[in-house]
Amino acid sequence: MLYEINEKAIKLQNQGKKITKLNIGDPDLATPSEIVEAAYVALKKGRTKYASAFGEQTLREKLGSIHGVSADNIVITPGSKWGIFSTMYLMLKNGGNVVIPTPYWTAYGLTALNLGAEARLLKTDLNSNWRVDLEALEELIDNKTRLIILNNPSNPTSKVMDEKVVDVIVKIAHENNIMILSDEVYSKISFVDTKSILDYDSDNILVTGFSKMFTMTGWRIGYVIANEKLISKIGKLNQITFSNVPVFIQDAALVALDIEEKLTSEIREIYFNRAKMASQILSEAKLEFSKPDAPFYVFPRVKGLDSEKFALDLLDDGVAVAPGTSFGDYREHFRISLTAPDNDLREALLQICKAVSN
Amino acid sequence: MLYEINEKAIKLQNQGKKITKLNIGDPDLATPSEIVEAAYVALKKGRTKYASAFGEQTLREKLGSIHGVSADNIVITPGSKWGIFSTMYLMLKNGGNVVIPTPYWTAYGLTALNLGAEARLLKTDLNSNWRVDLEALEELIDNKTRLIILNNPSNPTSKVMDEKVVDVIVKIAHENNIMILSDEVYSKISFVDTKSILDYDSDNILVTGFSKMFTMTGWRIGYVIANEKLISKIGKLNQITFSNVPVFIQDAALVALDIEEKLTSEIREIYFNRAKMASQILSEAKLEFSKPDAPFYVFPRVKGLDSEKFALDLLDDGVAVAPGTSFGDYREHFRISLTAPDNDLREALLQICKAVSN
Repeated sequence: MLYEINEKAIKLQNQGKKITKLNIGDPDLATPSEIVEAAYVALKKGRTKYASAFGEQTLREKLGSIHGVSADNIVITPGSKWGIFSTMYLMLKNGGNVVIPTPYWTAYGLTALNLGAEARLLKTDLNSNWRVDLEALEELIDNKTRLIILNNPSNPTSKVMDEKVVDVIVKIAHENNIMILSDEVYSKISFVDTKSILDYDSDNILVTGFSKMFTMTGWRIGYVIANEKLISKIGKLNQITFSNVPVFIQDAALVALDIEEKLTSEIREIYFNRAKMASQILSEAKLEFSKPDAPFYVFPRVKGLDSEKFALDLLDDGVAVAPGTSFGDYREHFRISLTAPDNDLREALLQICKAVSN
Repeated sequence: MLYEINEKAIKLQNQGKKITKLNIGDPDLATPSEIVEAAYVALKKGRTKYASAFGEQTLREKLGSIHGVSADNIVITPGSKWGIFSTMYLMLKNGGNVVIPTPYWTAYGLTALNLGAEARLLKTDLNSNWRVDLEALEELIDNKTRLIILNNPSNPTSKVMDEKVVDVIVKIAHENNIMILSDEVYSKISFVDTKSILDYDSDNILVTGFSKMFTMTGWRIGYVIANEKLISKIGKLNQITFSNVPVFIQDAALVALDIEEKLTSEIREIYFNRAKMASQILSEAKLEFSKPDAPFYVFPRVKGLDSEKFALDLLDDGVAVAPGTSFGDYREHFRISLTAPDNDLREALLQICKAVSN
């Protein structure tokens, strides 16, 4: 229902209604002007032609040096979402199952469904601070399991996984000859240190993107790091689907990497303060939630709430949030993206608290 | 082998070698500055956010008015290629077959293969001026046929289909309750009038894009026109794959439409002259081919040629062409894209003729 709410919110906006869109993780901040100007320079230089489906060599090499891998282990994708879809498509189109802890990012579940693949969901909950039950995980795995998907930090909880838990999951996956797809789009702007799947020796897959780190959501650029065989398969899939990410966008991303430290520390600070404000407002209204370890989300629970009805009704009050059912079996939860200017955000949070208490 | 040659050509270029790239349909012309500037204006206005997976309403409405359909019948895609992949994926992922006249555009065959769908190929040949045998077409159709793909004008032959032949194919498809996917990316810059699939009343699918018409190949923007049910399914697939075509690219495309007539007549003239030059040079060297009705290709035949070996050897001479085997069972043919500046093109054509005669 996440995408339906978004399309409805866009329609209402097109009709002239003011909607504070806390339903998707799209920062209100502008893409930094250095990145915009880099795109323009590239456009004027004629960087508007077909190009390699694997991505520009310069960008792959730069990312390789950042992550300590070879350029051949990297493929550029139109957003991290395509990295996830293409990996799931390639590994699950001929059957098999995928194990995913929940609450999970909506697209994992919708993609499995779309591919006709079985998604084995491992429920975690607020009471245990979203801890993965390792025994339950092992029980879900069988000889048809092709993939385990982790999202660290998590969307929708903004929780960073306990390192020791990740250690054990990596060990279990390795023993069972299963790859982990680790979606780490929030890791570089996380408030706390987040261990990457690349810190482990075993054969896994990192998916990430420029959207969240550089406020480049609508530019659609991300990448996958994996073994050469999988990278080659994704590149070949790119050739028959969208050809290549526009080169002028890749050039802009290359410039973004040069100013990464400055940008990510700014973004981290802004969202740390917003998370603090949200925590205060929601606590005062007695909502239950875990404190965010990273941008952009809070995932509060209200006992007895039907979050789908709640989210639809709230749209009429000019605030969009995402119902918990979009992230698994979490009808009493809803997700708030802290992606509006501070004043709008404060007002919307108060509106949410008011609606909850009605 | 088309994409392998392209990746190899890019590698050689990166190594500093001059390659005249006549292997892909990527015009040497620059994207018109009006379009580049429109993208920049949009970037500066902050048109860099997540947006509707169906495309911007303004662009859909404009395209709707051009084609005489409702905006709800249109979805914006990252190139016409995604329109084709997504349609084939949705219609063939659960089995069935697709009927395709050959020579065909490489991606149709690779996509069917990738989806595990059966592609039933209907061979046409130079001797009959690429005419579709309608009886043979009917014989290929059975109750598992989900789709017929037409490419009009054709890549690689640049042939426009005889209207009466299209009339009968549409009738056959309708009687058998099969949809036609008509890829018409070259139609607006064709040298002769080309009837569109939208000129027929039955329920078919048009796929096209901005790449060829506006010299916007690397921008990756196209669209599908179909019934609302299929458009809705493609939009939902967009949501879980790449989200949306960057809005600043859609804004640039909207401006491109305003100057369509001027641009397409310029492009038509340039390629008409190049086709004339190529015809002359190839005729003098006694190559067999059909005269192009549209940009960008000539698809000559040389009796006894192994075009894969020929294309690879020719790369060492600094010219890239596409082997005929990339377009079906056409080992004696190869495809030349007339997409290099006139002087480079002339030189490369002479180089090709020389290599053929060796």
